[in-house]
Amino acid sequence: MHDLSAARELRANIRRGEMTHNTTGMAMGFVQANLVVVPQAYAFDFLLFCQRNPKPCPLLEVVEAGSVEPARLAPGADIRRDLPRYKVFRDGVMTGEETGVSHIWRDDFVSFLLGCSYSFEKPLQDAGLEVRHLTLNTRPGVFTTNIPCRAAGAFEGPLVVSMRPYTPEDAIKAALITGALPEVHGAPIHVGDPAAIGIADVNAPTYSLPVPIHEGEVPVFWACGVTPQEVLLRARLPLAITHAPGHMFVTDLREEELKVYRESVR
Amino acid sequence: MHDLSAARELRANIRRGEMTHNTTGMAMGFVQANLVVVPQAYAFDFLLFCQRNPKPCPLLEVVEAGSVEPARLAPGADIRRDLPRYKVFRDGVMTGEETGVSHIWRDDFVSFLLGCSYSFEKPLQDAGLEVRHLTLNTRPGVFTTNIPCRAAGAFEGPLVVSMRPYTPEDAIKAALITGALPEVHGAPIHVGDPAAIGIADVNAPTYSLPVPIHEGEVPVFWACGVTPQEVLLRARLPLAITHAPGHMFVTDLREEELKVYRESVR
Repeated sequence: MHDLSAARELRANIRRGEMTHNTTGMAMGFVQANLVVVPQAYAFDFLLFCQRNPKPCPLLEVVEAGSVEPARLAPGADIRRDLPRYKVFRDGVMTGEETGVSHIWRDDFVSFLLGCSYSFEKPLQDAGLEVRHLTLNTRPGVFTTNIPCRAAGAFEGPLVVSMRPYTPEDAIKAALITGALPEVHGAPIHVGDPAAIGIADVNAPTYSLPVPIHEGEVPVFWACGVTPQEVLLRARLPLAITHAPGHMFVTDLREEELKVYRESVR
Repeated sequence: MHDLSAARELRANIRRGEMTHNTTGMAMGFVQANLVVVPQAYAFDFLLFCQRNPKPCPLLEVVEAGSVEPARLAPGADIRRDLPRYKVFRDGVMTGEETGVSHIWRDDFVSFLLGCSYSFEKPLQDAGLEVRHLTLNTRPGVFTTNIPCRAAGAFEGPLVVSMRPYTPEDAIKAALITGALPEVHGAPIHVGDPAAIGIADVNAPTYSLPVPIHEGEVPVFWACGVTPQEVLLRARLPLAITHAPGHMFVTDLREEELKVYRESVR
């Protein structure tokens, strides 16, 4: 049995309102997850969107309407209160951020928890590969591509990717390491030619700041958890909720357990 | 580009009514899939059941209400006519078999195509491992276990498994080979002790005939595509359709492509 206290104490602090900043680097070793909440009327289509697009939307757990507890990832947790910051969308517009969403929660809300690239960056570092944006204490550059996601109902839009620079040899190692982790975006979707996936300027990301690519390095692109947020905006749902960037749901799942998460039947 | 003619000709023969027997060993090299069709009102819950139980229900494609074409697995195919034999369930009772289901099709039907163990038996043989029931020209023994599936709405029930006997050393090889194929049930869920998963007599399968276990061999158990059929019976839907056992949907996907199916974004 793992010692789950770091994850549970962090969630308890968040629930008490004592921790409202981002979760980067906190409760190290525990999987952090992206959150998307939609009304039941849209839940089949969003679930199908995740099934069709597992690279940007690697689904870890779904919490059905009427429940707020991710019983597998974090028994006893409350999805309405245990993230430090949420974004609220109305009619396709981000209308504000909240430190809890109990006051706007509805019984027909369905919650989706998706794997996050935080969980593959430590394995990259453990294998001796630099993660440049962590070295620079910033975030990866994030780009909208010209690759359409596979649509499902109202949910459609371009694949969004994050970029990390590597030498070609390290790019292969990075592909092997992340390829073994399909629950957190898996292998890269492209390496080398930004224009081939519709990126005009690799030094001008759509989101976040550029991360420098050194001489002898190539840009390596991974499917990114920003994809569902962009898709959600375009779908113009009357009401939807996500985590705020970097303010993730901290689970009881150890990063090492991701390798067998899908294989577990008990 | 692969030569898809074998799969397409077989589906055309089936559609014309010229092939109504089982698809075992036909269009070799192409992935064959289990079919489950439910009304839209149950589709979210069944999709969620598959998401929660990927070992018995490895979902390859969902065809939405209003469509009958698995556009990714077999462009141009018609799910109502391109399987040789279907089972029809009304109120939780199997009421008959059909060679086509166009006459009872409804616009609100959603179709689920699931990976099938046929696709991992050839890789086992290619690695020099005997598949005993193929040697004996029969089917694997199939057993109901005491391991509950993760429920979703009306869909719940025990995990059903298939058994193949191996020496302990070959059991490890078989686990490695099938573990690399999560789209078709993945690694075994148990090896060695039938009683530990609620199987009283390994020589008395719940379905099909016993397959002999030789001296020095242990039984190896894989999650089985019969699980969703049993779950479907228990859910007592007013109307549902599946393939008839062994009468599968033959796709245009090559078995070798399964390894990268989930990783593909184009």
